[in-house]
Amino acid sequence: MTRYSFLGPSGTFTEAALLQLPGAEEAERVPASSVLSALTMVEEGSVDGAMVPIENSVEGGVTATLDAVSVAHNLHIVGESLVPITFVVASREPMPLSAISSLATHSHAWAQVRRWAEVTVPHAEYIPASSTAAGAQGLLAENPVADAAISSPLVAEQLGLHVIASGIEDVSGAVTRFVLVTKPGPTPEMTEADKTTVMVPLPEDRPGALMEILEHFSTRGVNICRIESRPTGNGMGDYFFSMDLEGHIKESRVADALTGIHRVSPKIRFLGSYPRADRKPQQVTQDVSDAAFSAARAWIESLRR
Amino acid sequence: MTRYSFLGPSGTFTEAALLQLPGAEEAERVPASSVLSALTMVEEGSVDGAMVPIENSVEGGVTATLDAVSVAHNLHIVGESLVPITFVVASREPMPLSAISSLATHSHAWAQVRRWAEVTVPHAEYIPASSTAAGAQGLLAENPVADAAISSPLVAEQLGLHVIASGIEDVSGAVTRFVLVTKPGPTPEMTEADKTTVMVPLPEDRPGALMEILEHFSTRGVNICRIESRPTGNGMGDYFFSMDLEGHIKESRVADALTGIHRVSPKIRFLGSYPRADRKPQQVTQDVSDAAFSAARAWIESLRR
Amino acid sequence: MTRYSFLGPSGTFTEAALLQLPGAEEAERVPASSVLSALTMVEEGSVDGAMVPIENSVEGGVTATLDAVSVAHNLHIVGESLVPITFVVASREPMPLSAISSLATHSHAWAQVRRWAEVTVPHAEYIPASSTAAGAQGLLAENPVADAAISSPLVAEQLGLHVIASGIEDVSGAVTRFVLVTKPGPTPEMTEADKTTVMVPLPEDRPGALMEILEHFSTRGVNICRIESRPTGNGMGDYFFSMDLEGHIKESRVADALTGIHRVSPKIRFLGSYPRADRKPQQVTQDVSDAAFSAARAWIESLRR
Amino acid sequence: MTRYSFLGPSGTFTEAALLQLPGAEEAERVPASSVLSALTMVEEGSVDGAMVPIENSVEGGVTATLDAVSVAHNLHIVGESLVPITFVVASREPMPLSAISSLATHSHAWAQVRRWAEVTVPHAEYIPASSTAAGAQGLLAENPVADAAISSPLVAEQLGLHVIASGIEDVSGAVTRFVLVTKPGPTPEMTEADKTTVMVPLPEDRPGALMEILEHFSTRGVNICRIESRPTGNGMGDYFFSMDLEGHIKESRVADALTGIHRVSPKIRFLGSYPRADRKPQQVTQDVSDAAFSAARAWIESLRR
Repeated sequence: MTRYSFLGPSGTFTEAALLQLPGAEEAERVPASSVLSALTMVEEGSVDGAMVPIENSVEGGVTATLDAVSVAHNLHIVGESLVPITFVVASREPMPLSAISSLATHSHAWAQVRRWAEVTVPHAEYIPASSTAAGAQGLLAENPVADAAISSPLVAEQLGLHVIASGIEDVSGAVTRFVLVTKPGPTPEMTEADKTTVMVPLPEDRPGALMEILEHFSTRGVNICRIESRPTGNGMGDYFFSMDLEGHIKESRVADALTGIHRVSPKIRFLGSYPRADRKPQQVTQDVSDAAFSAARAWIESLRR
Repeated sequence: MTRYSFLGPSGTFTEAALLQLPGAEEAERVPASSVLSALTMVEEGSVDGAMVPIENSVEGGVTATLDAVSVAHNLHIVGESLVPITFVVASREPMPLSAISSLATHSHAWAQVRRWAEVTVPHAEYIPASSTAAGAQGLLAENPVADAAISSPLVAEQLGLHVIASGIEDVSGAVTRFVLVTKPGPTPEMTEADKTTVMVPLPEDRPGALMEILEHFSTRGVNICRIESRPTGNGMGDYFFSMDLEGHIKESRVADALTGIHRVSPKIRFLGSYPRADRKPQQVTQDVSDAAFSAARAWIESLRR
Repeated sequence: MTRYSFLGPSGTFTEAALLQLPGAEEAERVPASSVLSALTMVEEGSVDGAMVPIENSVEGGVTATLDAVSVAHNLHIVGESLVPITFVVASREPMPLSAISSLATHSHAWAQVRRWAEVTVPHAEYIPASSTAAGAQGLLAENPVADAAISSPLVAEQLGLHVIASGIEDVSGAVTRFVLVTKPGPTPEMTEADKTTVMVPLPEDRPGALMEILEHFSTRGVNICRIESRPTGNGMGDYFFSMDLEGHIKESRVADALTGIHRVSPKIRFLGSYPRADRKPQQVTQDVSDAAFSAARAWIESLRR
Repeated sequence: MTRYSFLGPSGTFTEAALLQLPGAEEAERVPASSVLSALTMVEEGSVDGAMVPIENSVEGGVTATLDAVSVAHNLHIVGESLVPITFVVASREPMPLSAISSLATHSHAWAQVRRWAEVTVPHAEYIPASSTAAGAQGLLAENPVADAAISSPLVAEQLGLHVIASGIEDVSGAVTRFVLVTKPGPTPEMTEADKTTVMVPLPEDRPGALMEILEHFSTRGVNICRIESRPTGNGMGDYFFSMDLEGHIKESRVADALTGIHRVSPKIRFLGSYPRADRKPQQVTQDVSDAAFSAARAWIESLRR
């Protein structure tokens, strides 16, 4: 049976992301206490893959994830999931909101429902929990930690809690991005809508250095979906860039751009090509089509013979 | 008396960052339960400034801070602080590490001392706290939440706890960056080493669009210290870039670059120019010196007359 | 009375270009034996302006003209003319083509009608002349230099010759460009369709150096109509670029681009802004409109106050 | 026996350039009356190669040469020569300068010695000749066209004339560039110092279009030695660029840059790679070395497998 680790405990948005995978419902799902530990299970071979948050998470681990993937030299990204961030108020027994005197949840979740709480349950005390799932779980203890918990819909459902209110997040429409990480193996097949993730060390810290890297993408018509500079930890001015690109490494435009960057930053790391969760179709102009690359290469070869 | 809010509770790294400010020791320091609430105090005028974390924090709030500053239209960054991230184990009474059976701390802090804990106190149970300071505070309760707490050195000192072990973080040398935010007022004076923070909406999501923005910096010799793309929340492909630049808006090269970007992305927001915490001196080549800008402007004016 | 010099003798395409100027018909037109001598007359004040060829000329002087203008430090371009290049066969008395045994013309003109001559007058001997006009003039001498001459329509008309054949050029549709040069004075008024000519010394001979200059134009939406690298004569790798730009120096986008280039190449020379002969209207996008520059400057000024 | 055509007549600087070729002294040298006719001889197979002027010539043909090569689809450049431009005054019999009452030469040569003539032989009449060689030749006619001629040293030597004065050019140090053109065949071997000539049609006439072409060179560390925009003759705004690049098509950096440009401008024409006449050694940085290209390609291939 396929086994996946995920940033736990049970019922996190990360598990919800994992459940989007075909076959995940039947797979064994192993909660991990941190992103690093979820990834370590993959490296050690105790699971087949790990689902971890990568952007805007309410459960932490965000900024750490890609760095961890990068440090763990033998992991690749093979998929991504998008999960809408929405919260419910859940309790063991049915009760009106006005009867709630204490609410357990993780501090990040609390920050995201604060305005709702001030208006709707101003009298309720906030009880910090190590995760939203742990807060909900605490309702089932002999001495419940609180009257109610704020959690993902999945947690409430898994624990059989009563949902008193839903959609209580102050900002609606937020989405968290998750990636599925495995040991290196065959790169997922190219689709009509793929992403490629790379880490590019900045070769030199001076004006224009980043632009010279980006030129390799723009001259090949490769759009950048996400870019973040991160300190390497080797001291001042020593950065790398974490980037998601539109396209698959099997496309000539992506391969050619990465080839160019390898020359100026040979420590570039390829973290994977995988289908986009949003299925947004790619815009590939004629001059960066595979056909244009083939024609250009054939022309040069004819000249060099 | 000057009043500053900070991401609390007392004893956070954020308070340590605040204490680096000249005069902060004597100022009134008001802990806030979230970055947003610290910033709101500034906006409402109940404090003169707020110190909030901006990068790699162990106390959360990181990715939210700049976004919050950006949403809150009337706040500017006037300074930055760097605080080394280091943890201590503290207890109410002196005790050996081997005697610890439970340890309270925030989940982020716990993630950063995990390897130390597995090796040194494998028997100890982890008790989640809403912050490292809250965990330490909990030691002083009638029924202490745990035997010991993992916190910043500042918390242990403020609470008069015994430091049993220090420097227990798994990765040493980490530094967290904080910024001091105030209502708009006079921009801090130019020094030899300044930074400028801006938010630039991406005018169009296509290959090369980011590069066209960066060209405005490279043609003026302005180095980029940090760049992060962030979704605006208005849907797919709608990004802005959060950037720290070397230099002060009173330098011609910075002003000229921002002028250029304003044309292509008129919703650009200036969040402040302020002295760099690391005091790294600037490298300004002759062609982007104020003198070169003046000479060029004088030349053009002579031609247009 | 206004006086203009032009690359002579009478009847050249250059005089035809001069005659396109409003008022030139009534002005005194002084033929000069070389571009340099035409320009020298302007500098010395003996004429008000000089019309000289600048591109694709059949009468020589082409590559020398802008260089000469550049060396002559006190001259500006104030206008341009386009003249279609077409040739006629002219003789003193009417005669059939088949009766022509010798044809006088300048070697450049001869090169441009060679194929016609081989087919139509294969028996005719080519008699070199110092200019097409001199060849035509030679038909009127006591001992005519040839039976017929190949010249511009203007020469034949001015000398009262018979036009035996016209439109005999091997390549039809060719156009020669001429510029009107004066002492520095008020720059011609901005129209809807202007050009600006500059000379930009290459600050450093290395890969990317030219691109860094061109970036100043592309970031301001200024199109380049003509570019030519020319050795400065100071030795290997010492170049300048002669460029025609779309737009007038009174437009912010042009002024801003030239200001930027002045910083990296302070010896840049402005040779003039003047109406385009082809009246091709300009495409100015919103982000490089004068309004966008004004708004950007106002924004920066508000921040720096 | 090898046969070469050259822009004649005998004794031109072009013949001097031809004589720089190893073996040219013994080869048959065929003067041609125009660049086009010299090139036509190559195409028709009546000669093995043609030497034609390409830059700053005193003998014409300059701007036409590359265009002609381009139109004639089956010719390549295989070498270049540099000839210093210097003039002598020559006569049939020895005579003092003061005794000269007329001087024959080509108008371009006359323009280049004008200042010398005004000072040294102000009384002498200028007699136009169809070439400097023709002027010199005319001294040997039964009725000499002039007392003396202004020509290249080679002409005077070939005709056995007396050199009365030498080095009379107004600007010393000028150099003319010539290229040797043959039918397509094996590209000359790579040396330490090569040039490559290409013609690149501008894909679109808008701000930044040229820069996008040049980026392909700068991202591969390929320096541009010469660039000239030329109208294609297809109407307004329809240009191509004639460019000389540092490097040989057998170098990866050159091949990769041209491959990139072929995608955006598929009608690019390769006119040849050949040793530089000035033997200036190339500066190839590590990131654009053949080794860097190989390593980058090997990396990508390993990822795509």
